[in-house]
Amino acid sequence: MRVLVTGAAGMIGRKLVARLARDGALNGRRLAALDLHDIVSADAPAINGATVSTHIGDLAAPGEADRLVAAKPDMVFHLAGVVSAEAEADFDKGYRVNLDGTRALFDAIRAAGHAPRVVFSSSIAVFGAPFPDTIPDDFHPTPLTSYGTQKLIGEALLADYSRRGFLDGIGLRLPTICVRPGKPNKAASSFFSAIIRDPLAGRQTMLPVPRSVLHTHASPRAAVGFLLHAAGLAGEAVGPRRNLTMPGVACTVGEQIEALERIAGSKAVGLIREQHDEAVWAIVRNWPTRFMAERARALGFEAEESFDEIVTAHIEDEFGEAS
Amino acid sequence: MRVLVTGAAGMIGRKLVARLARDGALNGRRLAALDLHDIVSADAPAINGATVSTHIGDLAAPGEADRLVAAKPDMVFHLAGVVSAEAEADFDKGYRVNLDGTRALFDAIRAAGHAPRVVFSSSIAVFGAPFPDTIPDDFHPTPLTSYGTQKLIGEALLADYSRRGFLDGIGLRLPTICVRPGKPNKAASSFFSAIIRDPLAGRQTMLPVPRSVLHTHASPRAAVGFLLHAAGLAGEAVGPRRNLTMPGVACTVGEQIEALERIAGSKAVGLIREQHDEAVWAIVRNWPTRFMAERARALGFEAEESFDEIVTAHIEDEFGEAS
Repeated sequence: MRVLVTGAAGMIGRKLVARLARDGALNGRRLAALDLHDIVSADAPAINGATVSTHIGDLAAPGEADRLVAAKPDMVFHLAGVVSAEAEADFDKGYRVNLDGTRALFDAIRAAGHAPRVVFSSSIAVFGAPFPDTIPDDFHPTPLTSYGTQKLIGEALLADYSRRGFLDGIGLRLPTICVRPGKPNKAASSFFSAIIRDPLAGRQTMLPVPRSVLHTHASPRAAVGFLLHAAGLAGEAVGPRRNLTMPGVACTVGEQIEALERIAGSKAVGLIREQHDEAVWAIVRNWPTRFMAERARALGFEAEESFDEIVTAHIEDEFGEAS
Repeated sequence: MRVLVTGAAGMIGRKLVARLARDGALNGRRLAALDLHDIVSADAPAINGATVSTHIGDLAAPGEADRLVAAKPDMVFHLAGVVSAEAEADFDKGYRVNLDGTRALFDAIRAAGHAPRVVFSSSIAVFGAPFPDTIPDDFHPTPLTSYGTQKLIGEALLADYSRRGFLDGIGLRLPTICVRPGKPNKAASSFFSAIIRDPLAGRQTMLPVPRSVLHTHASPRAAVGFLLHAAGLAGEAVGPRRNLTMPGVACTVGEQIEALERIAGSKAVGLIREQHDEAVWAIVRNWPTRFMAERARALGFEAEESFDEIVTAHIEDEFGEAS
């Protein structure tokens, strides 16, 4: 089968591609071709018996999406997008990439006419405060960022294009992905990963919010699992509501730190310095806390059951042989 | 003040313009200029002391929206749009007019830089079955038509552009407007109005669905009232959730007919022939029934309290002197 991954150079994209390369197959079918698209060059793994091609460009540019789907991929993972902070800082770029790019891809798929499965990475950023204690699957999305707005619009297009038979889409509202490997970034959510990643690497880190902050997390490994599970789902089982809130581990920052202590000891925890940051807190206090995710669980999506598992997954995937 | 109305030749547009002409003012300020836009020529009423201009064109065409807002209207009523049946029949036209046209208008307003109040007519078509008995304000929109999808995207843009300070938007999810004057149209909802309008005019009419069908209605007069009330609302009172489900009269078709009988007698009711139409029923059975509309009521939006009032409003507005 032929698989297209947009945003293939991003963190989730790279991990998905590594997993596809390791498996050499998807949904029980051998990978014959893998197209990797991003605005920068994505690492192309060698896959036995498969042609791996990298494509660099802007999905919203005229002709780009058409060229990309001309070979009629059987499966499209649409992960490309400008992240939250950048979409907020650059209004035009966010709409061009996240809305126009997504629409151009969907229109190109419609023009290709073969209605492949499209797995779209949406986000819990489609939700905006105030929230009930636990957010049910039928809670209304009222984003408080341009990024969340663009993801919501992508979801709406995905559902309508699916209903029309132009593609067979599944949208996944990913929780915060934790522990993100690599360097800290400027996202307000950065500390959720940093307070685990940095102490494990022997580095000091800052905690800018109270330990009582409750949030929902899934590991990068779980996120890749969501994408692969979505790739194999029967569309009829999902029905017309094509966008699903993914499960995750809901825990407080305090519970994150307790998990770190159980796994890495008190010396690691000693590297966390509490230093309140009002700017970060002002953003994080309006974030969703926990989700029902009943539909996703019923459809077989699986996340970690505890934050201990998330820490362990990070250690295995980033420090172990399997990374 | 300067007021722009898009979709000014439509049913609601015409009634809004007539009301503005009668009042000669909006929000307590005298009308100095009224710009009427549509793809066909809208009737331009004479307003004492005000310049009334008509503009014919496609909002999605390059430059059109910019020309329209160049004079910096203080108030924009954005009612333009391809209706449900047409947006379903012509996918490209629906997206061009309802999505691209709306976005072009909002971008033109952003470029003008004066952040006027924008009142946007959305629709209960943003909702899709299955529903709870009464739909709460925080129920998720999962449209089952391209029209509903386009309205949902318009809502999302309106909220984000408002949050950014580019405009000061209020979106109104209108219930089914009943009694629609004029000839029957091909919309699946046409019978809701026809079973009242036609017997009142001495014409026979068909009822294609069971009398038990429950639906929510507001008169054209109430719809104009919603628009004018939205024009005067303080944005801070609405908060970041800029799209409001409007109130209305929830009643069964049987109750509609009982109201008709109370007002016009059994002879009028005798003109209704029950003739089940499976195609209409297949659409209508998936429509929302009733809404909480708690936020809208708390913000002062008022609809009729009974279907009798809706029938009376129709008789007064279409057969009386005041029309």
